[in-house]
Amino acid sequence: MLTVNDLLARVQTLNSLLDAQKSVPVTGLAALDKAQTGELSFLSSPKYRRQLAHTQASVVLVKEVDRAACPASCVALVVVDPYLAYALLSHLFDSVPSATGRLADTAQIDPSATVAAGVTMGPYAVVGRGVVIGPGAEVGAHCFIDDFAVIGAHTRLQARVTVAHRCVLGAHCVIQSGTVIGSNGFGYAPTETGWQAIAQLGRVLIGDRVEIGANCTLDRGAIEDTRIDSDVIIDNLVHIGHNVQIGARTALAGQVGVAGSTHFGPSCSAGGQAGFTGHIEIAANSHFTGQAMVTKGTTEGGLYSSGLPAQASKDWRKMVARVRQLETTMARLGALEKLIEDTE
Amino acid sequence: MLTVNDLLARVQTLNSLLDAQKSVPVTGLAALDKAQTGELSFLSSPKYRRQLAHTQASVVLVKEVDRAACPASCVALVVVDPYLAYALLSHLFDSVPSATGRLADTAQIDPSATVAAGVTMGPYAVVGRGVVIGPGAEVGAHCFIDDFAVIGAHTRLQARVTVAHRCVLGAHCVIQSGTVIGSNGFGYAPTETGWQAIAQLGRVLIGDRVEIGANCTLDRGAIEDTRIDSDVIIDNLVHIGHNVQIGARTALAGQVGVAGSTHFGPSCSAGGQAGFTGHIEIAANSHFTGQAMVTKGTTEGGLYSSGLPAQASKDWRKMVARVRQLETTMARLGALEKLIEDTE
Amino acid sequence: MLTVNDLLARVQTLNSLLDAQKSVPVTGLAALDKAQTGELSFLSSPKYRRQLAHTQASVVLVKEVDRAACPASCVALVVVDPYLAYALLSHLFDSVPSATGRLADTAQIDPSATVAAGVTMGPYAVVGRGVVIGPGAEVGAHCFIDDFAVIGAHTRLQARVTVAHRCVLGAHCVIQSGTVIGSNGFGYAPTETGWQAIAQLGRVLIGDRVEIGANCTLDRGAIEDTRIDSDVIIDNLVHIGHNVQIGARTALAGQVGVAGSTHFGPSCSAGGQAGFTGHIEIAANSHFTGQAMVTKGTTEGGLYSSGLPAQASKDWRKMVARVRQLETTMARLGALEKLIEDTE
Repeated sequence: MLTVNDLLARVQTLNSLLDAQKSVPVTGLAALDKAQTGELSFLSSPKYRRQLAHTQASVVLVKEVDRAACPASCVALVVVDPYLAYALLSHLFDSVPSATGRLADTAQIDPSATVAAGVTMGPYAVVGRGVVIGPGAEVGAHCFIDDFAVIGAHTRLQARVTVAHRCVLGAHCVIQSGTVIGSNGFGYAPTETGWQAIAQLGRVLIGDRVEIGANCTLDRGAIEDTRIDSDVIIDNLVHIGHNVQIGARTALAGQVGVAGSTHFGPSCSAGGQAGFTGHIEIAANSHFTGQAMVTKGTTEGGLYSSGLPAQASKDWRKMVARVRQLETTMARLGALEKLIEDTE
Repeated sequence: MLTVNDLLARVQTLNSLLDAQKSVPVTGLAALDKAQTGELSFLSSPKYRRQLAHTQASVVLVKEVDRAACPASCVALVVVDPYLAYALLSHLFDSVPSATGRLADTAQIDPSATVAAGVTMGPYAVVGRGVVIGPGAEVGAHCFIDDFAVIGAHTRLQARVTVAHRCVLGAHCVIQSGTVIGSNGFGYAPTETGWQAIAQLGRVLIGDRVEIGANCTLDRGAIEDTRIDSDVIIDNLVHIGHNVQIGARTALAGQVGVAGSTHFGPSCSAGGQAGFTGHIEIAANSHFTGQAMVTKGTTEGGLYSSGLPAQASKDWRKMVARVRQLETTMARLGALEKLIEDTE
Repeated sequence: MLTVNDLLARVQTLNSLLDAQKSVPVTGLAALDKAQTGELSFLSSPKYRRQLAHTQASVVLVKEVDRAACPASCVALVVVDPYLAYALLSHLFDSVPSATGRLADTAQIDPSATVAAGVTMGPYAVVGRGVVIGPGAEVGAHCFIDDFAVIGAHTRLQARVTVAHRCVLGAHCVIQSGTVIGSNGFGYAPTETGWQAIAQLGRVLIGDRVEIGANCTLDRGAIEDTRIDSDVIIDNLVHIGHNVQIGARTALAGQVGVAGSTHFGPSCSAGGQAGFTGHIEIAANSHFTGQAMVTKGTTEGGLYSSGLPAQASKDWRKMVARVRQLETTMARLGALEKLIEDTE
């Protein structure tokens, strides 16, 4: 059974607690308005402040400013950043199956591969020639790691991940189920009768602490490498074209697509389904709202958007018609202006 | 060989047939204008009514109103809803490999898992600790069902499906190949140097008769559960974020994306590539056209849309320019108005 | 070690070389501005012409017109189409693991399947009843090929590809990792309480030399077949609905979605994330820019577009407001026109 004391070992609190408070049991984690006795909660955004007074949680992570508003029934843990503290503590309650440090009997590992101590490998994983897997790494069931790929220390591949030949993943990465790293880029030369595929000679190079969601596709470079820098986070079903570079700390939400040879500076973000044309440069700290249609690079950080938000279809149909009439509308306006100018 | 009599066992007809009609052989299923002798067809939409008189089909599902227009060569099966009758009868002609009720030798099932009678399991499937699989369920080749997941009775997982730990699927569901149920939601707290992942403690709870397409991703909840209610149908490559709730009977078409914590009421639908921002509430019976960019919730049902349909690029470029000039256009209009007001 | 002579065996040059030039070693392939001594490069687009004079490459593919501008240090290979020559020669430098022509011990092949000579099959591949695999084909690790599917000669399936029952792939195709061919189309008849699935009786028929990216989904036809004609190229995460037909030589970029029963003529293309509604006809040589929202068919070839490109969010918000005011703006314009007409 966890107690408040176990939490204190993981987050730095700004207040001191009584021994009785330290021994309060903590059984789970819940939102302020849903928490029951025994549960840990947190107040991060001011908009939930009203919930604090009525929470049934036994322990709450709060900023100094909210400490006084905690109910007496509740142990307040004062921290600088309650959301970050919640993130850190959430792992105490995780039920994800833990790594076994064993290689499944049915994992097929080429004798030329180098598998470090403490690697966990699931059933039916396949590891090719010359692959290097760092200490503490996890390779899920049915993963396919092709020849000469490198998996860094403590990097976790969930079930059914493909890492193509020669791709390199850094340390402490997480790659979720179904993702393909090192697919061939969409590079073809037109011929008289169809297309001649261009061999995709580059790799995908992934830094440290990169997290990539499920069923993503990251193309290997055509000549040079596709590059995902450290601390990048990528959601599900994201497509990264060949030769793309994603700068450190950038966050890409679900179903984002980045066409070939586009480069992101560090600390950018893109909302879900945003699409980036190829061969453009995105400046550091550029942020894009969901479904943005990004056809040009940015030269400075900032927030960028496109699209007309959904509305009732009958209003939308009128709006589309009005936009389509703009050409004639502006001609009418010009005619009026001329008329008035002439009469003056 | 199937006969009309076999069809009658599956759909309720409003007309009675002669014995000679009941023994007509039925060899396949085809559209009215393509059907050959021996084939079954149907007339559902009035726009195909003209094809009825000339159809070569031997058997046709029709509404009462269309009965008289059936050619004499044709056995008319009068039903309330020909499209639904076609859907029911289509399964008679399906060639999908049937379940064997056997567990493949190479399926690796943890001894602590509970596998009911009559379960079919394909080669190289992996079933973790404490998993429960209901009677008549099918688990395809290379599926990975992680610890303590539950698969309801008669639910079918095609090849290469991932069901993460503790996720729960109801009865009579179909999950197509490559789909990942229970991926980790995109939840991170920013730190000074990057991102701290938040443990995703919730599950994915899926009701009964839910059908999910290929290569979808459904994230588990951050604290509470992601919930897909009964009778929901989801097409391929759809992304469902963490904590999302999809109300009963809702239909989501291909490549739809739903960001975290958004809730759909029952009986909604979304066209292909529609995108939903996070933390919004979609009222029951809300319908969205394809590529809709949904940034706000709806408080009542209805049809919602966004986007400007594609047109010839030279017209599109002009249109974009005109929209970009709206600010100055409206200033010009205001100036004219003022001028005229002043002169009056 | 490769020499220029090896290159000459693969591309037809328009100039003749000295023996000394033919024996120049070629160690790799690089862009003009990055190439080192020993490397091959190419000049295709005029916009890189300035780089030619300074390239360190030992061999350059050029058009006749650029021959004189090659540095003296460099062997010029004059060809009609340098980009196509580069594409052809790139394969000399590819490090993709080569086919072994062997069937892995753990590949599970039904005894009724026909596997031609020289087929390569990876570990844990599963091949169903009556499947036919042509000579020289490659079936990656963890592939699942269901009953009665046909894989043409020299077609390559990367790891973790699903080919559903009865689907037919032609010769010399490439299907990348995670792609699902023959998923069930999104076909349901509404019932009073939910949905009745329609059996998807058609197949997916794929021509020769078709290349399909990673994690795509191609639905089988409802009654007739879904059809991908020869020489089509499809990027990652593309969704093809049931009954779709894609004409020869068409190219679909990443995350494109094509709804059911839409037909493309030959030699079309679609940029990333473009979406096509169902039941429309796209004329030959129709090209669509990225994110195009295609709601109507085209009757002639040409370039089609939609969408408003991303801009700074504060400008975007104004633009959205202006578009929303168009109804009243036009009323104001009409009122002015009337006023002036009345005063005239």
